[in-house]
Amino acid sequence: MVFQKNHVVETKKYGQMTDLTPWVQLAVEESQLKNGIVNIFNVGSTACIGTIEFEPGLMEDLPEQLSRLFPPGRHYAHEQTWHDGNGHSHLQATLMGPEITVPFKDKKLVLGVWQQIFHLECDIKPRKRDIVITVMGE
Amino acid sequence: MVFQKNHVVETKKYGQMTDLTPWVQLAVEESQLKNGIVNIFNVGSTACIGTIEFEPGLMEDLPEQLSRLFPPGRHYAHEQTWHDGNGHSHLQATLMGPEITVPFKDKKLVLGVWQQIFHLECDIKPRKRDIVITVMGE
Amino acid sequence: MVFQKNHVVETKKYGQMTDLTPWVQLAVEESQLKNGIVNIFNVGSTACIGTIEFEPGLMEDLPEQLSRLFPPGRHYAHEQTWHDGNGHSHLQATLMGPEITVPFKDKKLVLGVWQQIFHLECDIKPRKRDIVITVMGE
Repeated sequence: MVFQKNHVVETKKYGQMTDLTPWVQLAVEESQLKNGIVNIFNVGSTACIGTIEFEPGLMEDLPEQLSRLFPPGRHYAHEQTWHDGNGHSHLQATLMGPEITVPFKDKKLVLGVWQQIFHLECDIKPRKRDIVITVMGE
Repeated sequence: MVFQKNHVVETKKYGQMTDLTPWVQLAVEESQLKNGIVNIFNVGSTACIGTIEFEPGLMEDLPEQLSRLFPPGRHYAHEQTWHDGNGHSHLQATLMGPEITVPFKDKKLVLGVWQQIFHLECDIKPRKRDIVITVMGE
Repeated sequence: MVFQKNHVVETKKYGQMTDLTPWVQLAVEESQLKNGIVNIFNVGSTACIGTIEFEPGLMEDLPEQLSRLFPPGRHYAHEQTWHDGNGHSHLQATLMGPEITVPFKDKKLVLGVWQQIFHLECDIKPRKRDIVITVMGE
């Protein structure tokens, strides 16, 4: 009834997007469950998970527009404590959220043709990211 | 343990909001499950799901304020590729997210009195939307 | 397979953040389930749930930056109807979302070391908040 696995993404820079859809679909198949939901969760507070049409234009737009909402250069109280220059990374990741829950039916993710599951690196340096995929159903 | 159904919403225009609460409550009752969670997921990358006090004022405010965060007229890289004029629709939908997961107890959704589950059309033309409702519990 | 409990948070003011992590971890332990997911849901439409590095700087930054996206003073249609001065509260809470779903493994929440589950009060007066914690797994 519960199948859980980790998937690692090694990111190289701020704003890098990764398509997780094939890995999530694989986990659904490995679970041998037929119908249910799958939760995809980023461990850590400076990256996020969501769905998008995964094409080069939006891979540029999303990080750029999030940087307009919460820009790198702004004065954040987080910086006063840590001086690590990633206050905006935390805020962007919290706004977007660390997880998404997607239904599957007959062992297939129910997504639109132009809808993929992505990971977005909001931190300012390369990171090794643990993503927990939890498949639940019957 | 898993009950899954589709609900179709035919939207007419950008910014249209639909109250999904009665349909989600109906799915919970049809599932004959007593306690658990229900996931409501929009198939496609230019509409979103959330909760709100579903009243005329906020039905005007939410699309308007999202249009301020990611305005229709801005230069988006998505447009360079597709020229379909809906870069902002993708970004608004991704920011808000395509799904929500709500608990139910004694066969009833646990929501505030002024808290409803909504669908918001972010695309710029009428769309037929598939919404997948997955009820899980015991 | 399903364990559900309520947790009450009494908030004192707009922008107050509360760390829910210990209460969610406790619910996972009480459930006696080993692996699965836990959904944390705020009942009501003017507060939100998410994850963040729970430190004093970001506790200041998050409410402040959300107040820049949807400021208290702006003209909202919600105000025309209700005159209760909390249009921005509704919009901030809807943008952030009322819930989060987090995996657990071997009876422990799978979170980063600097990643906690928070509740944020977006309303302009003290509120008694019901938070529903639903643990599902095996």
